[in-house]
Parts: sequence; C-alpha cells; structure tokens
Amino acid sequence: MEVRLIGGLRRIVVIGTGLIGTSVALALRERGVDVSLADRDPASVRLAAELGAGTPLRDGDGPADVAVLAVPPAAVAATLLDAQKRNLARFYTDVASVKARPLREAAELGCDLACYVAGHPLAGSERSGPAAARADLFLGRPWALCPTDGTDPAAVETVTALARECGAQTVVVDAEEHDQAVALVSHAPHVVSAAVAARLRRAPKVALGLAGQGVRDVTRIAAGDPELWIGILGSNALPVAEVIDEVAADLTAVAAALREGAGPGVSDLLERGGAGRRRLPGKHGGRPGAYTVVSVLIPDRPGELALLFQAAGVAGVNIEDVTIEHSPGRPVGVVELSVDPAAAERLAEELRARGWSVPG
Amino acid sequence: MEVRLIGGLRRIVVIGTGLIGTSVALALRERGVDVSLADRDPASVRLAAELGAGTPLRDGDGPADVAVLAVPPAAVAATLLDAQKRNLARFYTDVASVKARPLREAAELGCDLACYVAGHPLAGSERSGPAAARADLFLGRPWALCPTDGTDPAAVETVTALARECGAQTVVVDAEEHDQAVALVSHAPHVVSAAVAARLRRAPKVALGLAGQGVRDVTRIAAGDPELWIGILGSNALPVAEVIDEVAADLTAVAAALREGAGPGVSDLLERGGAGRRRLPGKHGGRPGAYTVVSVLIPDRPGELALLFQAAGVAGVNIEDVTIEHSPGRPVGVVELSVDPAAAERLAEELRARGWSVPG
Repeated sequence: MEVRLIGGLRRIVVIGTGLIGTSVALALRERGVDVSLADRDPASVRLAAELGAGTPLRDGDGPADVAVLAVPPAAVAATLLDAQKRNLARFYTDVASVKARPLREAAELGCDLACYVAGHPLAGSERSGPAAARADLFLGRPWALCPTDGTDPAAVETVTALARECGAQTVVVDAEEHDQAVALVSHAPHVVSAAVAARLRRAPKVALGLAGQGVRDVTRIAAGDPELWIGILGSNALPVAEVIDEVAADLTAVAAALREGAGPGVSDLLERGGAGRRRLPGKHGGRPGAYTVVSVLIPDRPGELALLFQAAGVAGVNIEDVTIEHSPGRPVGVVELSVDPAAAERLAEELRARGWSVPG
Repeated sequence: MEVRLIGGLRRIVVIGTGLIGTSVALALRERGVDVSLADRDPASVRLAAELGAGTPLRDGDGPADVAVLAVPPAAVAATLLDAQKRNLARFYTDVASVKARPLREAAELGCDLACYVAGHPLAGSERSGPAAARADLFLGRPWALCPTDGTDPAAVETVTALARECGAQTVVVDAEEHDQAVALVSHAPHVVSAAVAARLRRAPKVALGLAGQGVRDVTRIAAGDPELWIGILGSNALPVAEVIDEVAADLTAVAAALREGAGPGVSDLLERGGAGRRRLPGKHGGRPGAYTVVSVLIPDRPGELALLFQAAGVAGVNIEDVTIEHSPGRPVGVVELSVDPAAAERLAEELRARGWSVPG
C-alpha cells in the first residue's frame, strides 16, 4: 500500500533556474527537500547547483513530488506539457506573473490540469538570474494560487505546502481576478516606473547630480529585465492597458491644472494618492483602518527598546508597527509606535508614568 | 579689528522647525554650532528643542552667522524680508525645493540679495515635522546652491560651509536650471507616484494583499504631505507640467501598443527606462554605516516584540532600525532588525536559541 505524504515534500524539480526558480530551490533545500534543477541554459543550472540550490536533473530520476515551472508566462503551457510527458512529478505548479492566459494555453495544448496548480509568488528583484537568488526571497510575501474546479485537492495541498515551506503566505484567487490585481499592483506600476526613468535618458548631468531617494525609489523596478517584462505585459495586456490609461488621464489633467495655476486639480490627485498609499498593508503603510502613532523619545542604547516594549506589554497594547529615527552620535532617538487608536492614550500614559518623554 | 571667520560657524538661526529645519539644526548642533529655533507654531519649537536641536530664539540674541529659512517656497521671500528687518543674521539661505520664483519674489519685495544664497538640500522623507528629523538626513546628499552675480562671495562661502557641515555635497547651479532639474528628478516623479497610488484607493482587497515591494517603492513618496507638495508644484508649475506631459504621452502610447498586441512600442519604453535608470549615479548617500538585516518570524500578538528586544539586549546588540511586515489576518509577521554587521550572527544565534525562526 502506498503511503502518500500530503504536503510532506521530499523532492521537487525546478525547471528554469532564474531568480525565482533558484530562490525556490534554495528555500526548499534549507528545509531539507531534495531539489533537481533543469534549465535550457546548462551554465545556469551549473551556477544554481554551485550556489547550493540542488543537483542537475538526470534522466531516470523518477517523478518528484512537485515540478516548479519557473519560466516566462509564454513558456508555461509548453513547459508543462513537456514535463508531464516526461512524468517529472506528481504535481505541477508555475511561478509566472500572469495566470489566465497560461491556464488557457495549457488547456488548449491538452495538459493534465487536475494535477496542476497555477501559482505566483509576489516576490522579485530588479536583478535576475541564479546569482541574485536568495532563500529568504519569499519570506512573509504573498504567493497567489489559482486552482480551478477541476484541480485535485491533493495538488492544492501539496503546492500550498511548498509555498509555505518557502516562508510565503498563500492567497487563493481566481486567475482572472489575479491578473486584474497584479495589473494594478505590479504590471502597471512597472510601466509607469519605466516612463519616469525614460526621462532620465537625456537628463542634463546637473539633474542627475540632484537626484535624491524619491526618484530612485520610483524608478527602481525600471531596472528589471526588459525581455522578461515584455512577456509579462504582453500576457496581461488589456488589464494593464486599462490601469495605464487611468494613470495617463490623471497626469494629463494635473499637467493642465499646473499650466492654469495649479488649484484643486493638483490637490485632488495628491489627496487621492495619499489615500491609496495608506491602503497598502504593512511597512509604514498601515493596514486599512489606520493606526495611531505614539512617538517616544528614547536614549540610543541597547536595552532601551526592550524596556519600551515591556511597558507596552504591561499596558496590554499590541504594537502594530515600529519605526526608529535616530542618527549616529545623537543621544536621543524617536521611536514611533503604531497602535490601535483606542489604545494610544493608555500607552502614552503608561510610558510617561515610566519616565519616557512622549510628545503630543 | 574684526576677525571674520569665513565658514567658521558659531551660531545659526533656524526659522521653521519642520523636518528639514530641525534636521539642519540637529546636524549643526553635533558640530558644536549654537542653534536658535523659531517657528510660527510654538509647540513645534518646543519639540525641536527637546530633541536637542537648539534653544528657542529670543529677542536680543543678536545676529547669527546664518539664518536658515526652512519654510515652504511661497513663504521664503516674506520670511527673508522679515528676518533681514530684524537683523537675525549676517547671511541668509533657504531650503525650499524651488528656487527661481522665491528669488524673483525676494527681489520684488526689496530684500537684500547680496547676503542671501538660495539653497536646496535634496533630502527629505515622506514623513514631516520635527519628530521625523535626523542629524544624518543630509549625509552624502546633494545640496544645491544658487548664488547670483550680485551675491557676496563671503555669503556663498559661509552657506557652503553650512551645507558641508551637515554632511552634504554642494552643487552650484543657476536657479532656472535647478528648477528644470528638480522638475525632472523630484517634482514630476512625485506626481506620477501619486497617480499610481491613487489607483489603490478603490483597489479590491485581494489586490492590496498581492502588493509587493515594487508598488511600495513606486508609491512611497505619494505619502508626502499634500499641503507642502501643492506649494512646491505650484511654484514650479511649467517645468513640472512639461515632464508630466511626456510621461503621459509615453503611457498612452504603451497602452495603445498593449491593446494592439504589445510589440515594439512596449519594448522601446522598457529599454529607454532601463537606460535612464542606469544614468542615476550609484548610491548617492544611502544611510551611512550599512547595517546587516536579521529577519525573524514572530507571532503577531502583544508582548512578542518585547521578548525579541529583550533577547537583543541580552546579546548586547543595539537595534538600529526595525521594520515589521505583516498582512491582515496573518498570524506570523516578519520583523527585520538592522544591526551592526559584526553583531548579526550573535543576534541570530541568541534568537534561535530562544526558539525564534531566524531564516538565513
């Protein structure tokens, strides 16, 4: 009798040893999973293997638990068909940034879709290739999974386990809904970033010399691999075009408002931008629902933060976010604690009672 | 005989104790310069003083070496006139993001322009107010100075010394040229960032849950103070409008190309974007010291952070920065602790020994 270890990954195959594929391999190697590596470029496989991501796939290795197809969106369906013909694994998933079209193409090619769970880890880098890979790339990141009605529940469970072993948080979502969502939060922002960066191509040197952190942040993702992104954008063309048209319309309206002496058109966009930005969860953004920030002045020395958090614990207040502003040599830092608005005053009082300076 | 210490700053006045003014004050306090603080909001002066930025300006303090006008662009000329009437300093500078219009307005008001050097440190934050100030805000950052033919060379020398004492790199540039440059590398990117962020205002929850680092970077500056930015954009309206129109035209063309099946229009923009991005000088600034980041998975509940910081204290490790990544409903957050590279391994071991998951 066969004992089937649901979610108990022993061996996976990674097809495509770029940034994402190699990072999946590294993450699972750390969890004790055997990894076989394949890529159309043998040098890339060798480098990934050298980095500790696994060993090159050999004929006769037998089927793995999961084959991870880490290839561009346009190559997913054909790669899936080929992998299934070679019986590389019991279950299959991919990591492409677009989901609806590859699923459609896989159906058209006659792939077995019951054992395939379309996936997309929302992690990446403006760098590419195995050398940029890191085992912690997916840590705490969303990882979209798009099973269909026909997907084997065991496939979903196993691929979910794989994503979680990589440290990611799985989000189950319909493929079309996924593509609309990433058009908004990933693909369109990429194009806009490129459009800002494109202006720098003919910028005078003095302008480049005056560039600060803002334009660096806005244009960081414009440094991404154009080939990869042409494939992504082409596979999700209409949802991306819609978002881009909206951005362009806003910009045209603001430019007109500026030429006419600024006014409400400009402030309206800035207000809407701030409101949109605040909806992003986590990291200095805050969950939808907005926390209250309690600022505390603290001496910049070890142990001080521990006392602060102890005090918060005593007050029964959960700290949702922390930022520390300090500078070398300055004796006092400012710690900003984001907390439930209902708890802010209680926390401030507790901290003041313990001798901290809590402006407000 | 008067001994004139060119560049030997002994005392400055900061008018406007917001993020930039207070940061200038903190930076110069560290260099042993006396700082007098003024702001139309007395609470802001008190907080800045409590942070160690200096002492409140008093009548009869006598003229300082330099008065730094850290007020919005539209307020620069009037503030300069008032400061000169009160003889607050020998030399004057400002930190506004726009230079041509305030200079024109100052001339129209009849200010003494010989002792005034228009300035603009290219440093900032999406946060504002004295609590966000830091002494190292200008470290390695460009600081534009726009003297005119009529400017006293001693004023240029003294204000240059002030910027350098703050750790900045001075860039001498014509005011009109400055405004064109910052339209390109600061003001237009701000508007574009807001236009991307504005799309998130009505984004479905699933899209927000799939947001990764890319859209966070592109929209970071959209969190800036709208009031401040309306003033900046209004004071540099035409140069900004020109850049924004170019961005919008690129976006409209790419949207059309995507609707027609992608093709060369898309790859052209991505290539131009990559080329423009590569022209940005490498790591201007960046916060000094380059810390190592130790990532820890923690349950999202009260008291957990206190235990974490206690453990850091036991290990004798000073936490230089903290970020918390978490998403709604998720039981586990990722805390990133920035520490001295020499202490990173010790901290990781201490945390692992206490049962935390420290990937890496």
